Amino acid sequence: MSFPALLAADASLIQTRLDAAFASLPDQPVTRAMAYATTGGKRLRGFLVLESARMLGVAPAVSVSAAAAVEALHAYSLVHDDLPAMDDDSLRRGQPTLHIRWDEATAILAGDALQTLAFELLTDPALGSAEIRLKLVAGLAKASGAAGMVLGQALDIAAESAGTPLTLEEITALQAGKTGALIGFAAESGAILAEQNPRPLRAYAAALGLAFQIADDILDVTGDAAKAGKRLQKDADAGKATFVSLLGLDAARARAKWLIDEACDHLLPYGASAQNLIDCARFTIARES
Amino acid sequence: MSFPALLAADASLIQTRLDAAFASLPDQPVTRAMAYATTGGKRLRGFLVLESARMLGVAPAVSVSAAAAVEALHAYSLVHDDLPAMDDDSLRRGQPTLHIRWDEATAILAGDALQTLAFELLTDPALGSAEIRLKLVAGLAKASGAAGMVLGQALDIAAESAGTPLTLEEITALQAGKTGALIGFAAESGAILAEQNPRPLRAYAAALGLAFQIADDILDVTGDAAKAGKRLQKDADAGKATFVSLLGLDAARARAKWLIDEACDHLLPYGASAQNLIDCARFTIARES
Repeated sequence: MSFPALLAADASLIQTRLDAAFASLPDQPVTRAMAYATTGGKRLRGFLVLESARMLGVAPAVSVSAAAAVEALHAYSLVHDDLPAMDDDSLRRGQPTLHIRWDEATAILAGDALQTLAFELLTDPALGSAEIRLKLVAGLAKASGAAGMVLGQALDIAAESAGTPLTLEEITALQAGKTGALIGFAAESGAILAEQNPRPLRAYAAALGLAFQIADDILDVTGDAAKAGKRLQKDADAGKATFVSLLGLDAARARAKWLIDEACDHLLPYGASAQNLIDCARFTIARES
Repeated sequence: MSFPALLAADASLIQTRLDAAFASLPDQPVTRAMAYATTGGKRLRGFLVLESARMLGVAPAVSVSAAAAVEALHAYSLVHDDLPAMDDDSLRRGQPTLHIRWDEATAILAGDALQTLAFELLTDPALGSAEIRLKLVAGLAKASGAAGMVLGQALDIAAESAGTPLTLEEITALQAGKTGALIGFAAESGAILAEQNPRPLRAYAAALGLAFQIADDILDVTGDAAKAGKRLQKDADAGKATFVSLLGLDAARARAKWLIDEACDHLLPYGASAQNLIDCARFTIARES
């Protein structure tokens, strides 16, 4: 199966799991808004959960609730980041953002409930022993809280309002929280589910996460808004420092490629079984959205 | 020890646990905002965790992370409910609300990170086996998500914008989510920690939660804003139906008292060891804030 076909098949598995979760909630606007927020997207983070688990012998039927949890957590972060008080975006995945389609109160509440749902999904007995599920809960909390994703977003907003462009070191630290922490947890969760050493997957994900963000910055400058499904050029418009503004386009591309090679090197212990994760890393910097 | 002294002593234990959690997070504005949001308050929910556990033989040294989790979750809900797009309140526990003291973005992020922290606290090994901790995670998720607290708040906001006052049945259902679900989980968590039948505590908390909300509605009409530390008369000003507007003040008082008697009846299996929970129930309708 080609990588895009595999990614699409896994996205469909994750969607089915999320739909089942929404079907068990009251049929209310906030539930429908939650479902809307998780529709579309590449599901790269969820794929990393399913594939890292699969590589280590854990089937999607076992791991899918963890993949759905990571996607629910990611969706909540996008809904809140898009709010007027945050990044104030009106387009996401080619559709109106949640507070435009509904209203701000619904967007805040749907985001809140998506975060709750992420933790609830990790209690699914299908994922394995209580010890395994509890490790997933602790890992997701660490990745998403005030030492991870929330910290990254707070630093990003603070930098924007301060008006002083960040240094390369500061941006790297910021992105490690904002996008790196959840990507790291997604890849690591396969090792947690398989009860194996998480170190190689963690190292793979750290390089992958940074390359992912550099690719995002490149897309923001060179991309096609119609394909990306969101507003582009926004960092340049806001005068924000990015990997592209600090390194230049060519050096940013070279660094992303170098990071992907590094990410793949960390997979050497897994031999040929890591091929899909290698393809995923290459896809990360070749994508158009 | 008198009930107010016991409540204050337990609040102090919970504060110490929360302070330890904040000290382990990066020293950033969002962390300081999280700490601010959990300062003050009666800590009734956290007390219910500690006391229900203590009654069943589980010491505060074991249960305190669950009490801190419930208070972190409650604080997140207050921070988000106070936002301009929600209830738009500027005073809470006698202090400026978080978005007034900082800004909206920080309030959204601090609330988000407080929810994450609540789940992280429930992974504390001091709470017991992985099975126990996972039951606490599942219980908190059920109480706080789109079938619990978030649903109640969404129904409340929908009723306000619809302009049609709710019926008594609708308000009862709304409050079961908005305040009842977390109070229910708080009381039940003692039984989870002690691995005992949760049914009597769950029934106690269901009656207590409703009485608590009726008492809140009474306070909103008869209370002293300085003692309450928040804006009062706001439901009447907004033309919202409350237990007081639907039942009248005297019948609302009678119903709250009746519910407290019912709550205490559910504690009969525990005999004299339930005295502190009985005192807590009586305090709930006698409080001035």
